[in-house]
Amino acid sequence: MRIAFQGEMGAFGEAAAERVNREARRVACPTFDSVFEAVGRGPATHGVLPIENSIAGTIHQTYDLLLEHDLSIVGEVEVPVVHHLLAPPGVSLDRVRRIYSHPQALAQCERFLKTLSDVEIVASANTAGAAKRVAEEARPDAAAIASARAGDLFGLVSLAPAIQDFRDNVTRFIVIGRRPLGDSMADKTTVVFSLRNEPGALFKALGVFALRNVNLTKLESRPFRGRPWEYLFYADLAASRDELPCARALQHLAEMAPTLRVLGSYCAWHEHEMKALDPFDVCT
Amino acid sequence: MRIAFQGEMGAFGEAAAERVNREARRVACPTFDSVFEAVGRGPATHGVLPIENSIAGTIHQTYDLLLEHDLSIVGEVEVPVVHHLLAPPGVSLDRVRRIYSHPQALAQCERFLKTLSDVEIVASANTAGAAKRVAEEARPDAAAIASARAGDLFGLVSLAPAIQDFRDNVTRFIVIGRRPLGDSMADKTTVVFSLRNEPGALFKALGVFALRNVNLTKLESRPFRGRPWEYLFYADLAASRDELPCARALQHLAEMAPTLRVLGSYCAWHEHEMKALDPFDVCT
Repeated sequence: MRIAFQGEMGAFGEAAAERVNREARRVACPTFDSVFEAVGRGPATHGVLPIENSIAGTIHQTYDLLLEHDLSIVGEVEVPVVHHLLAPPGVSLDRVRRIYSHPQALAQCERFLKTLSDVEIVASANTAGAAKRVAEEARPDAAAIASARAGDLFGLVSLAPAIQDFRDNVTRFIVIGRRPLGDSMADKTTVVFSLRNEPGALFKALGVFALRNVNLTKLESRPFRGRPWEYLFYADLAASRDELPCARALQHLAEMAPTLRVLGSYCAWHEHEMKALDPFDVCT
Repeated sequence: MRIAFQGEMGAFGEAAAERVNREARRVACPTFDSVFEAVGRGPATHGVLPIENSIAGTIHQTYDLLLEHDLSIVGEVEVPVVHHLLAPPGVSLDRVRRIYSHPQALAQCERFLKTLSDVEIVASANTAGAAKRVAEEARPDAAAIASARAGDLFGLVSLAPAIQDFRDNVTRFIVIGRRPLGDSMADKTTVVFSLRNEPGALFKALGVFALRNVNLTKLESRPFRGRPWEYLFYADLAASRDELPCARALQHLAEMAPTLRVLGSYCAWHEHEMKALDPFDVCT
Protein backbone atom coordinates (compact mmCIF):
# COMPACT_ATOMS: atom_id res chain seq x y z
CA MET A 1 0.00 0.00 0.00
CA ARG A 2 1.34 3.40 -1.01
CA ILE A 3 -0.56 6.52 0.11
CA ALA A 4 -0.11 9.89 -1.62
CA PHE A 5 -0.59 13.15 0.31
CA GLN A 6 -0.18 16.83 -0.52
CA GLY A 7 2.72 18.69 1.06
CA GLU A 8 6.13 17.93 2.41
CA MET A 9 7.09 15.42 5.09
CA GLY A 10 5.80 16.80 8.39
CA ALA A 11 2.62 18.17 6.79
CA PHE A 12 -0.87 17.38 8.07
CA GLY A 13 -1.50 15.20 5.01
CA GLU A 14 1.33 12.89 5.99
CA ALA A 15 -0.29 12.40 9.41
CA ALA A 16 -3.58 11.55 7.71
CA ALA A 17 -1.81 8.97 5.53
CA GLU A 18 -0.28 7.46 8.67
CA ARG A 19 -3.74 7.22 10.26
CA VAL A 20 -5.07 5.34 7.23
CA ASN A 21 -2.35 2.73 7.54
CA ARG A 22 0.71 3.03 9.74
CA GLU A 23 2.69 0.54 7.63
CA ALA A 24 1.93 2.04 4.22
CA ARG A 25 4.60 3.91 2.24
CA ARG A 26 3.87 7.65 2.11
CA VAL A 27 4.24 9.52 -1.17
CA ALA A 28 4.69 13.32 -0.94
CA CYS A 29 3.03 15.29 -3.78
CA PRO A 30 3.38 19.03 -4.43
CA THR A 31 -0.33 19.75 -5.18
CA PHE A 32 -3.81 18.30 -4.61
CA ASP A 33 -4.00 17.59 -8.33
CA SER A 34 -0.79 15.57 -8.25
CA VAL A 35 -2.25 13.40 -5.45
CA PHE A 36 -5.04 12.43 -7.86
CA GLU A 37 -2.48 11.77 -10.59
CA ALA A 38 -0.27 9.66 -8.31
CA VAL A 39 -3.29 7.45 -7.52
CA GLY A 40 -4.74 7.42 -11.04
CA ARG A 41 -1.50 6.56 -12.87
CA GLY A 42 0.63 5.25 -10.00
CA PRO A 43 2.85 4.92 -8.05
CA ALA A 44 0.28 5.34 -5.22
CA THR A 45 -2.57 2.91 -4.49
CA HIS A 46 -4.48 5.46 -2.40
CA GLY A 47 -4.42 9.17 -1.63
CA VAL A 48 -5.57 11.40 1.23
CA LEU A 49 -7.06 14.86 0.70
CA PRO A 50 -8.47 17.31 3.27
CA ILE A 51 -12.19 17.80 2.69
CA GLU A 52 -13.38 19.74 5.74
CA ASN A 53 -12.03 21.52 8.79
CA SER A 54 -14.24 21.87 11.86
CA ILE A 55 -13.41 25.59 12.14
CA ALA A 56 -12.70 26.78 8.60
CA GLY A 57 -15.25 24.62 6.77
CA THR A 58 -15.08 22.76 3.50
CA ILE A 59 -11.95 22.53 1.35
CA HIS A 60 -13.63 23.20 -1.97
CA GLN A 61 -10.67 22.39 -4.17
CA THR A 62 -10.93 18.73 -3.17
CA TYR A 63 -14.57 18.58 -4.27
CA ASP A 64 -13.69 20.25 -7.56
CA LEU A 65 -10.92 17.72 -8.24
CA LEU A 66 -13.20 14.78 -7.38
CA LEU A 67 -15.43 15.95 -10.23
CA GLU A 68 -12.53 16.23 -12.66
CA HIS A 69 -11.16 12.76 -11.93
CA ASP A 70 -12.64 9.28 -12.05
CA LEU A 71 -11.41 8.06 -8.66
CA SER A 72 -13.79 7.07 -5.87
CA ILE A 73 -13.86 8.02 -2.20
CA VAL A 74 -13.04 4.75 -0.39
CA GLY A 75 -12.72 6.01 3.18
CA GLU A 76 -12.15 8.94 5.53
CA VAL A 77 -9.96 9.84 8.53
CA GLU A 78 -9.96 12.71 11.02
CA VAL A 79 -6.83 14.44 12.26
CA PRO A 80 -6.73 16.99 15.12
CA VAL A 81 -4.99 20.28 14.27
CA VAL A 82 -2.62 21.58 16.96
CA HIS A 83 -0.33 24.49 16.09
CA HIS A 84 2.94 25.28 17.87
CA LEU A 85 5.29 28.25 17.68
CA LEU A 86 8.54 26.52 16.72
CA ALA A 87 12.12 27.77 16.72
CA PRO A 88 15.67 26.35 16.84
CA PRO A 89 16.91 25.50 20.35
CA GLY A 90 18.16 28.62 22.15
CA VAL A 91 15.61 31.05 20.66
CA SER A 92 13.33 32.55 23.32
CA LEU A 93 9.78 33.83 22.78
CA ASP A 94 10.62 37.45 23.72
CA ARG A 95 13.32 37.55 21.01
CA VAL A 96 11.00 36.47 18.18
CA ARG A 97 10.50 39.28 15.60
CA ARG A 98 9.50 37.23 12.49
CA ILE A 99 6.96 34.42 12.25
CA TYR A 100 6.57 32.27 9.13
CA SER A 101 3.50 30.19 8.33
CA HIS A 102 0.71 29.47 5.87
CA PRO A 103 -1.97 32.23 5.89
CA GLN A 104 -4.61 29.69 7.03
CA ALA A 105 -2.52 28.60 10.03
CA LEU A 106 -1.77 32.25 10.85
CA ALA A 107 -5.52 32.98 10.78
CA GLN A 108 -6.14 30.02 13.10
CA CYS A 109 -3.73 31.47 15.67
CA GLU A 110 -4.96 35.07 15.55
CA ARG A 111 -5.59 35.38 19.30
CA PHE A 112 -2.09 34.17 20.17
CA LEU A 113 -0.50 36.47 17.57
CA LYS A 114 -2.34 39.46 19.05
CA THR A 115 -0.52 38.89 22.37
CA LEU A 116 2.84 39.53 20.66
CA SER A 117 4.14 42.95 19.74
CA ASP A 118 6.67 44.16 17.19
CA VAL A 119 6.53 40.91 15.18
CA GLU A 120 6.59 40.67 11.38
CA ILE A 121 4.31 37.98 9.90
CA VAL A 122 5.65 36.28 6.75
CA ALA A 123 3.40 34.10 4.58
CA SER A 124 4.67 30.66 3.47
CA ALA A 125 3.29 28.16 1.00
CA ASN A 126 2.78 25.60 3.79
CA THR A 127 3.52 25.13 7.49
CA ALA A 128 6.04 22.32 7.09
CA GLY A 129 7.93 24.57 4.66
CA ALA A 130 7.84 27.39 7.22
CA ALA A 131 9.37 25.07 9.85
CA LYS A 132 12.03 23.96 7.38
CA ARG A 133 12.91 27.58 6.55
CA VAL A 134 13.26 28.52 10.22
CA ALA A 135 15.52 25.50 10.76
CA GLU A 136 17.68 26.34 7.74
CA GLU A 137 17.98 30.08 8.41
CA ALA A 138 18.68 29.50 12.13
CA ARG A 139 18.10 33.20 12.91
CA PRO A 140 17.92 34.12 16.59
CA ASP A 141 14.66 36.04 16.02
CA ALA A 142 12.59 33.83 13.66
CA ALA A 143 9.94 31.20 14.44
CA ALA A 144 7.37 29.18 12.49
CA ILE A 145 3.80 28.14 13.21
CA ALA A 146 3.53 24.44 12.39
CA SER A 147 2.81 21.05 13.95
CA ALA A 148 4.89 19.36 16.64
CA ARG A 149 5.46 16.70 13.99
CA ALA A 150 7.12 19.27 11.69
CA GLY A 151 9.11 20.56 14.69
CA ASP A 152 10.49 17.09 15.42
CA LEU A 153 11.37 16.57 11.78
CA PHE A 154 13.40 19.79 11.51
CA GLY A 155 14.91 19.80 15.02
CA LEU A 156 12.87 22.73 16.34
CA VAL A 157 11.50 23.20 19.84
CA SER A 158 8.08 24.51 20.82
CA LEU A 159 8.13 28.02 22.31
CA ALA A 160 4.35 27.93 22.75
CA PRO A 161 2.20 24.79 22.33
CA ALA A 162 -1.43 24.53 21.18
CA ILE A 163 -1.68 28.18 20.10
CA GLN A 164 -4.64 27.69 17.76
CA ASP A 165 -7.71 29.80 18.69
CA PHE A 166 -10.00 26.78 19.05
CA ARG A 167 -9.19 23.53 20.86
CA ASP A 168 -11.60 21.41 18.83
CA ASN A 169 -9.84 22.04 15.52
CA VAL A 170 -10.13 18.83 13.48
CA THR A 171 -9.55 18.21 9.78
CA ARG A 172 -11.39 15.42 8.01
CA PHE A 173 -9.62 13.77 5.06
CA ILE A 174 -11.11 11.59 2.38
CA VAL A 175 -9.22 8.57 1.10
CA ILE A 176 -9.34 8.10 -2.67
CA GLY A 177 -8.32 4.93 -4.41
CA ARG A 178 -8.65 2.54 -7.29
CA ARG A 179 -9.77 -0.23 -4.95
CA PRO A 180 -11.56 -0.45 -1.57
CA LEU A 181 -9.78 0.22 1.70
CA GLY A 182 -9.90 -3.06 3.65
CA ASP A 183 -13.15 -4.90 4.11
CA SER A 184 -15.18 -2.56 6.34
CA MET A 185 -18.88 -2.27 5.50
CA ALA A 186 -19.88 0.96 3.76
CA ASP A 187 -22.23 3.12 5.86
CA LYS A 188 -21.75 6.52 4.22
CA THR A 189 -22.22 7.80 0.67
CA THR A 190 -21.06 11.06 -0.93
CA VAL A 191 -22.94 12.34 -3.98
CA VAL A 192 -22.80 15.46 -6.15
CA PHE A 193 -25.76 16.79 -8.10
CA SER A 194 -26.96 19.90 -9.86
CA LEU A 195 -30.49 21.28 -9.88
CA ARG A 196 -32.49 23.41 -12.25
CA ASN A 197 -32.70 27.02 -11.08
CA GLU A 198 -36.35 26.78 -10.01
CA PRO A 199 -38.11 27.75 -6.79
CA GLY A 200 -38.27 24.82 -4.38
CA ALA A 201 -35.75 22.71 -6.34
CA LEU A 202 -33.52 22.01 -3.34
CA PHE A 203 -36.51 21.30 -1.10
CA LYS A 204 -37.72 18.66 -3.53
CA ALA A 205 -34.24 17.17 -3.87
CA LEU A 206 -33.86 16.80 -0.10
CA GLY A 207 -37.32 15.28 -0.06
CA VAL A 208 -36.10 12.14 -1.84
CA PHE A 209 -33.97 11.40 1.21
CA ALA A 210 -36.23 12.77 3.99
CA LEU A 211 -39.27 10.83 2.73
CA ARG A 212 -37.23 7.60 2.96
CA ASN A 213 -35.59 8.43 6.33
CA VAL A 214 -32.12 8.54 4.77
CA ASN A 215 -30.19 11.01 6.93
CA LEU A 216 -28.16 13.78 5.32
CA THR A 217 -25.04 14.51 7.41
CA LYS A 218 -23.63 17.32 5.27
CA LEU A 219 -24.80 19.51 2.43
CA GLU A 220 -22.52 21.89 0.61
CA SER A 221 -23.10 24.11 -2.39
CA ARG A 222 -20.36 24.97 -4.87
CA PRO A 223 -20.34 27.49 -7.69
CA PHE A 224 -20.97 25.79 -11.04
CA ARG A 225 -17.93 26.84 -13.07
CA GLY A 226 -18.87 28.77 -16.16
CA ARG A 227 -22.31 29.56 -14.75
CA PRO A 228 -21.93 32.37 -12.18
CA TRP A 229 -24.20 32.02 -9.15
CA GLU A 230 -25.51 28.58 -10.17
CA TYR A 231 -24.62 25.74 -7.84
CA LEU A 232 -23.63 22.12 -7.58
CA PHE A 233 -24.59 20.37 -4.34
CA TYR A 234 -22.42 17.89 -2.48
CA ALA A 235 -24.21 15.70 0.06
CA ASP A 236 -23.10 13.08 2.56
CA LEU A 237 -25.71 10.41 3.30
CA ALA A 238 -25.64 8.18 6.39
CA ALA A 239 -26.18 4.98 4.38
CA SER A 240 -24.48 2.72 1.86
CA ARG A 241 -25.52 3.23 -1.77
CA ASP A 242 -26.49 -0.44 -1.81
CA GLU A 243 -29.09 -0.14 0.99
CA LEU A 244 -32.50 -0.12 -0.64
CA PRO A 245 -33.89 3.18 0.73
CA CYS A 246 -30.67 4.99 -0.29
CA ALA A 247 -30.53 3.30 -3.72
CA ARG A 248 -34.16 4.25 -4.39
CA ALA A 249 -33.63 7.82 -3.15
CA LEU A 250 -30.73 8.20 -5.60
CA GLN A 251 -32.89 6.87 -8.46
CA HIS A 252 -35.55 9.41 -7.46
CA LEU A 253 -32.98 12.22 -7.32
CA ALA A 254 -31.79 11.31 -10.83
CA GLU A 255 -35.33 12.07 -12.07
CA MET A 256 -34.92 15.75 -11.14
CA ALA A 257 -31.15 16.38 -11.17
CA PRO A 258 -29.60 17.25 -14.57
CA THR A 259 -26.33 15.79 -13.24
CA LEU A 260 -25.84 13.23 -10.46
CA ARG A 261 -22.73 11.28 -9.57
CA VAL A 262 -21.97 9.00 -6.63
CA LEU A 263 -18.45 9.96 -5.54
CA GLY A 264 -18.12 6.97 -3.24
CA SER A 265 -19.75 4.70 -0.70
CA TYR A 266 -17.43 3.91 2.19
CA CYS A 267 -17.04 3.28 5.90
CA ALA A 268 -17.38 6.50 7.92
CA TRP A 269 -14.68 7.45 10.44
CA HIS A 270 -15.98 6.50 13.85
CA GLU A 271 -15.06 8.06 17.16
CA HIS A 272 -13.89 4.75 18.70
CA GLU A 273 -11.32 4.23 15.96
CA MET A 274 -9.88 7.64 16.69
CA LYS A 275 -9.57 6.86 20.40
CA ALA A 276 -7.75 3.61 19.63
CA LEU A 277 -4.98 5.59 17.92
CA ASP A 278 -2.31 7.68 19.62
CA PRO A 279 -3.37 11.29 19.45
CA PHE A 280 -0.78 13.38 17.68
CA ASP A 281 -0.95 16.81 16.23
CA VAL A 282 -0.74 18.08 12.73
CA CYS A 283 -1.63 21.11 10.75
CA THR A 284 -1.83 22.65 7.29
CA MET B 1 -20.23 58.71 3.38
CA ARG B 2 -17.07 56.86 4.39
CA ILE B 3 -16.65 53.21 3.30
CA ALA B 4 -14.23 50.86 5.05
CA PHE B 5 -12.59 47.97 3.13
CA GLN B 6 -9.99 45.33 3.97
CA GLY B 7 -6.56 45.65 2.41
CA GLU B 8 -4.33 48.33 1.03
CA MET B 9 -5.12 50.88 -1.64
CA GLY B 10 -5.28 48.98 -4.94
CA ALA B 11 -6.95 45.95 -3.31
CA PHE B 12 -10.17 44.43 -4.61
CA GLY B 13 -12.02 45.76 -1.55
CA GLU B 14 -11.22 49.34 -2.54
CA ALA B 15 -12.78 48.71 -5.96
CA ALA B 16 -15.90 47.36 -4.26
CA ALA B 17 -16.10 50.50 -2.10
CA GLU B 18 -15.83 52.61 -5.25
CA ARG B 19 -18.69 50.66 -6.84
CA VAL B 20 -20.92 51.35 -3.83
CA ASN B 21 -20.36 55.08 -4.16
CA ARG B 22 -17.77 56.72 -6.35
CA GLU B 23 -17.76 59.90 -4.26
CA ALA B 24 -17.42 58.26 -0.84
CA ARG B 25 -14.19 58.47 1.14
CA ARG B 26 -12.47 55.07 1.31
CA VAL B 27 -11.03 53.82 4.60
CA ALA B 28 -8.34 51.09 4.37
CA CYS B 29 -8.43 48.54 7.22
CA PRO B 30 -5.86 45.80 7.90
CA THR B 31 -8.33 42.97 8.66
CA PHE B 32 -11.96 41.96 8.06
CA ASP B 33 -12.56 42.40 11.79
CA SER B 34 -11.27 45.98 11.71
CA VAL B 35 -13.76 46.77 8.89
CA PHE B 36 -16.55 45.84 11.29
CA GLU B 37 -14.95 47.95 14.03
CA ALA B 38 -14.50 50.95 11.73
CA VAL B 39 -18.24 50.84 10.94
CA GLY B 40 -19.42 49.98 14.46
CA ARG B 41 -17.41 52.66 16.27
CA GLY B 42 -16.51 54.98 13.40
CA PRO B 43 -14.97 56.60 11.45
CA ALA B 44 -16.73 54.70 8.63
CA THR B 45 -20.46 54.85 7.89
CA HIS B 46 -20.39 51.65 5.81
CA GLY B 47 -18.06 48.77 5.05
CA VAL B 48 -17.58 46.29 2.20
CA LEU B 49 -16.63 42.65 2.75
CA PRO B 50 -16.23 39.84 0.19
CA ILE B 51 -18.86 37.15 0.78
CA GLU B 52 -18.59 34.88 -2.25
CA ASN B 53 -16.43 34.30 -5.30
CA SER B 54 -17.95 32.65 -8.36
CA ILE B 55 -15.00 30.24 -8.64
CA ALA B 56 -13.72 29.75 -5.10
CA GLY B 57 -17.05 29.88 -3.28
CA THR B 58 -18.07 31.46 0.00
CA ILE B 59 -15.75 33.58 2.14
CA HIS B 60 -16.68 32.02 5.46
CA GLN B 61 -14.86 34.49 7.65
CA THR B 62 -17.30 37.22 6.65
CA TYR B 63 -20.27 35.10 7.74
CA ASP B 64 -18.56 34.34 11.05
CA LEU B 65 -17.93 38.04 11.70
CA LEU B 66 -21.53 38.94 10.83
CA LEU B 67 -22.58 36.66 13.69
CA GLU B 68 -20.12 38.24 16.11
CA HIS B 69 -21.18 41.82 15.37
CA ASP B 70 -24.48 43.64 15.48
CA LEU B 71 -24.26 45.36 12.08
CA SER B 72 -26.74 44.65 9.29
CA ILE B 73 -26.21 43.87 5.64
CA VAL B 74 -27.57 46.93 3.81
CA GLY B 75 -26.53 46.11 0.24
CA GLU B 76 -24.28 44.14 -2.10
CA VAL B 77 -21.99 44.77 -5.10
CA GLU B 78 -20.22 42.52 -7.57
CA VAL B 79 -16.69 43.06 -8.82
CA PRO B 80 -15.05 41.11 -11.65
CA VAL B 81 -11.65 39.60 -10.80
CA VAL B 82 -8.97 40.00 -13.48
CA HIS B 83 -5.37 39.13 -12.63
CA HIS B 84 -2.30 40.53 -14.41
CA LEU B 85 1.37 39.66 -14.22
CA LEU B 86 2.86 43.02 -13.26
CA ALA B 87 6.45 44.25 -13.27
CA PRO B 88 8.38 47.55 -13.41
CA PRO B 89 8.81 48.99 -16.92
CA GLY B 90 11.72 47.27 -18.72
CA VAL B 91 11.22 43.79 -17.22
CA SER B 92 10.35 41.19 -19.86
CA LEU B 93 8.35 38.00 -19.32
CA ASP B 94 11.23 35.67 -20.25
CA ARG B 95 13.43 37.26 -17.55
CA VAL B 96 10.94 36.70 -14.71
CA ARG B 97 12.27 34.19 -12.13
CA ARG B 98 10.23 35.19 -9.02
CA ILE B 99 6.49 35.83 -8.77
CA TYR B 100 4.87 37.29 -5.66
CA SER B 101 1.17 37.03 -4.85
CA HIS B 102 -1.48 35.88 -2.39
CA PRO B 103 -1.90 32.06 -2.41
CA GLN B 104 -5.54 32.41 -3.54
CA ALA B 105 -4.56 34.56 -6.54
CA LEU B 106 -1.73 32.15 -7.37
CA ALA B 107 -4.23 29.27 -7.28
CA GLN B 108 -6.54 31.21 -9.60
CA CYS B 109 -3.75 31.55 -12.19
CA GLU B 110 -2.50 27.96 -12.05
CA ARG B 111 -2.80 27.32 -15.80
CA PHE B 112 -0.79 30.42 -16.68
CA LEU B 113 1.87 29.61 -14.09
CA LYS B 114 2.26 26.10 -15.56
CA THR B 115 3.34 27.68 -18.88
CA LEU B 116 6.39 29.25 -17.16
CA SER B 117 9.53 27.35 -16.24
CA ASP B 118 12.25 27.96 -13.68
CA VAL B 119 10.15 30.44 -11.69
CA GLU B 120 10.05 30.67 -7.89
CA ILE B 121 6.62 31.39 -6.41
CA VAL B 122 6.62 33.56 -3.28
CA ALA B 123 3.49 33.89 -1.11
CA SER B 124 2.37 37.38 0.01
CA ALA B 125 -0.26 38.50 2.48
CA ASN B 126 -2.24 40.22 -0.32
CA THR B 127 -1.93 41.03 -4.02
CA ALA B 128 -1.67 44.80 -3.63
CA GLY B 129 1.20 44.19 -1.19
CA ALA B 130 2.87 41.92 -3.75
CA ALA B 131 2.63 44.68 -6.38
CA LYS B 132 4.04 47.21 -3.92
CA ARG B 133 6.97 44.89 -3.10
CA VAL B 134 7.81 44.37 -6.76
CA ALA B 135 7.74 48.14 -7.31
CA GLU B 136 9.96 48.82 -4.29
CA GLU B 137 12.50 46.07 -4.97
CA ALA B 138 12.69 46.93 -8.69
CA ARG B 139 14.52 43.67 -9.47
CA PRO B 140 14.95 42.82 -13.15
CA ASP B 141 13.55 39.28 -12.55
CA ALA B 142 10.57 39.77 -10.21
CA ALA B 143 6.86 40.20 -10.97
CA ALA B 144 3.59 40.22 -9.02
CA ILE B 145 0.14 38.81 -9.74
CA ALA B 146 -2.36 41.57 -8.92
CA SER B 147 -5.00 43.79 -10.47
CA ALA B 148 -4.42 46.39 -13.18
CA ARG B 149 -5.61 48.85 -10.54
CA ALA B 150 -2.71 47.86 -8.24
CA GLY B 151 -0.35 48.05 -11.22
CA ASP B 152 -1.42 51.64 -11.97
CA LEU B 153 -1.03 52.61 -8.33
CA PHE B 154 2.54 51.32 -8.07
CA GLY B 155 3.74 52.24 -11.58
CA LEU B 156 3.94 48.67 -12.90
CA VAL B 157 3.13 47.45 -16.39
CA SER B 158 1.27 44.30 -17.38
CA LEU B 159 3.47 41.56 -18.85
CA ALA B 160 0.43 39.29 -19.29
CA PRO B 161 -3.19 40.44 -18.88
CA ALA B 162 -6.22 38.41 -17.69
CA ILE B 163 -4.16 35.40 -16.63
CA GLN B 164 -6.80 33.95 -14.27
CA ASP B 165 -7.92 30.40 -15.20
CA PHE B 166 -11.58 31.37 -15.56
CA ARG B 167 -12.94 34.41 -17.36
CA ASP B 168 -16.14 34.62 -15.34
CA ASN B 169 -14.39 35.21 -12.04
CA VAL B 170 -16.58 37.57 -10.01
CA THR B 171 -16.51 38.45 -6.32
CA ARG B 172 -19.69 39.51 -4.55
CA PHE B 173 -19.31 41.91 -1.61
CA ILE B 174 -21.83 42.72 1.06
CA VAL B 175 -22.20 46.26 2.32
CA ILE B 176 -22.60 46.58 6.09
CA GLY B 177 -23.76 49.71 7.81
CA ARG B 178 -25.48 51.42 10.68
CA ARG B 179 -28.06 52.89 8.31
CA PRO B 180 -29.61 51.94 4.95
CA LEU B 181 -27.78 52.50 1.69
CA GLY B 182 -29.88 54.97 -0.29
CA ASP B 183 -33.59 54.45 -0.74
CA SER B 184 -33.74 51.33 -2.97
CA MET B 185 -36.48 48.83 -2.13
CA ALA B 186 -35.28 45.69 -0.35
CA ASP B 187 -35.80 42.51 -2.44
CA LYS B 188 -33.32 40.14 -0.80
CA THR B 189 -32.92 38.86 2.77
CA THR B 190 -30.00 37.02 4.38
CA VAL B 191 -30.69 34.85 7.43
CA VAL B 192 -28.66 32.49 9.61
CA PHE B 193 -30.18 29.62 11.56
CA SER B 194 -29.21 26.43 13.34
CA LEU B 195 -31.14 23.17 13.36
CA ARG B 196 -31.40 20.26 15.74
CA ASN B 197 -29.34 17.30 14.57
CA GLU B 198 -32.35 15.23 13.48
CA PRO B 199 -33.12 13.36 10.27
CA GLY B 200 -35.06 15.56 7.87
CA ALA B 201 -34.39 18.78 9.82
CA LEU B 202 -33.07 20.71 6.81
CA PHE B 203 -35.84 19.41 4.57
CA LYS B 204 -38.44 20.76 7.01
CA ALA B 205 -36.61 24.08 7.35
CA LEU B 206 -36.53 24.59 3.58
CA GLY B 207 -40.20 23.65 3.54
CA VAL B 208 -41.17 26.88 5.31
CA PHE B 209 -39.95 28.77 2.25
CA ALA B 210 -40.87 26.30 -0.53
CA LEU B 211 -44.45 25.95 0.73
CA ARG B 212 -44.84 29.74 0.49
CA ASN B 213 -43.04 30.10 -2.88
CA VAL B 214 -40.26 32.15 -1.32
CA ASN B 215 -37.21 31.40 -3.46
CA LEU B 216 -33.90 30.47 -1.86
CA THR B 217 -31.01 31.82 -3.95
CA LYS B 218 -28.16 30.47 -1.80
CA LEU B 219 -27.74 28.03 1.06
CA GLU B 220 -24.47 27.58 2.89
CA SER B 221 -23.56 25.48 5.89
CA ARG B 222 -20.88 26.51 8.36
CA PRO B 223 -19.33 24.50 11.19
CA PHE B 224 -20.86 25.45 14.54
CA ARG B 225 -17.80 26.49 16.57
CA GLY B 226 -17.36 24.38 19.65
CA ARG B 227 -19.58 21.63 18.23
CA PRO B 228 -17.55 19.68 15.64
CA TRP B 229 -19.56 18.55 12.61
CA GLU B 230 -22.70 20.47 13.65
CA TYR B 231 -23.75 23.25 11.32
CA LEU B 232 -25.20 26.72 11.05
CA PHE B 233 -27.05 27.51 7.83
CA TYR B 234 -26.87 30.79 5.95
CA ALA B 235 -29.61 31.39 3.42
CA ASP B 236 -30.35 34.15 0.89
CA LEU B 237 -34.05 34.65 0.16
CA ALA B 238 -35.35 36.44 -2.93
CA ALA B 239 -37.76 38.63 -0.95
CA SER B 240 -37.84 41.47 1.56
CA ARG B 241 -38.34 40.43 5.18
CA ASP B 242 -41.38 42.73 5.21
CA GLU B 243 -43.23 40.87 2.43
CA LEU B 244 -45.90 38.76 4.06
CA PRO B 245 -44.94 35.29 2.70
CA CYS B 246 -41.31 35.85 3.72
CA ALA B 247 -42.23 37.28 7.15
CA ARG B 248 -44.50 34.28 7.82
CA ALA B 249 -41.87 31.80 6.60
CA LEU B 250 -39.37 33.31 9.04
CA GLN B 251 -41.90 33.03 11.89
CA HIS B 252 -42.43 29.38 10.91
CA LEU B 253 -38.68 28.75 10.78
CA ALA B 254 -38.31 30.21 14.29
CA GLU B 255 -40.61 27.44 15.54
CA MET B 256 -38.03 24.78 14.61
CA ALA B 257 -34.67 26.61 14.62
CA PRO B 258 -32.94 26.92 18.05
CA THR B 259 -31.25 30.07 16.70
CA LEU B 260 -32.44 32.38 13.92
CA ARG B 261 -31.20 35.84 13.02
CA VAL B 262 -31.99 38.09 10.07
CA LEU B 263 -28.63 39.51 8.99
CA GLY B 264 -30.20 42.06 6.67
CA SER B 265 -32.88 42.83 4.12
CA TYR B 266 -31.54 44.87 1.22
CA CYS B 267 -31.61 45.59 -2.49
CA ALA B 268 -29.90 42.82 -4.50
CA TRP B 269 -27.18 43.74 -7.02
CA HIS B 270 -28.80 43.68 -10.44
CA GLU B 271 -27.12 43.01 -13.75
CA HIS B 272 -28.25 46.32 -15.30
CA GLU B 273 -26.56 48.33 -12.57
CA MET B 274 -23.32 46.54 -13.28
CA LYS B 275 -23.55 47.32 -17.00
CA ALA B 276 -24.12 51.00 -16.24
CA LEU B 277 -20.73 51.17 -14.55
CA ASP B 278 -17.33 51.15 -16.24
CA PRO B 279 -15.95 47.63 -16.04
CA PHE B 280 -12.59 47.58 -14.30
CA ASP B 281 -10.62 44.79 -12.79
CA VAL B 282 -9.65 43.94 -9.28
CA CYS B 283 -8.48 40.99 -7.28
CA THR B 284 -7.73 39.62 -3.84
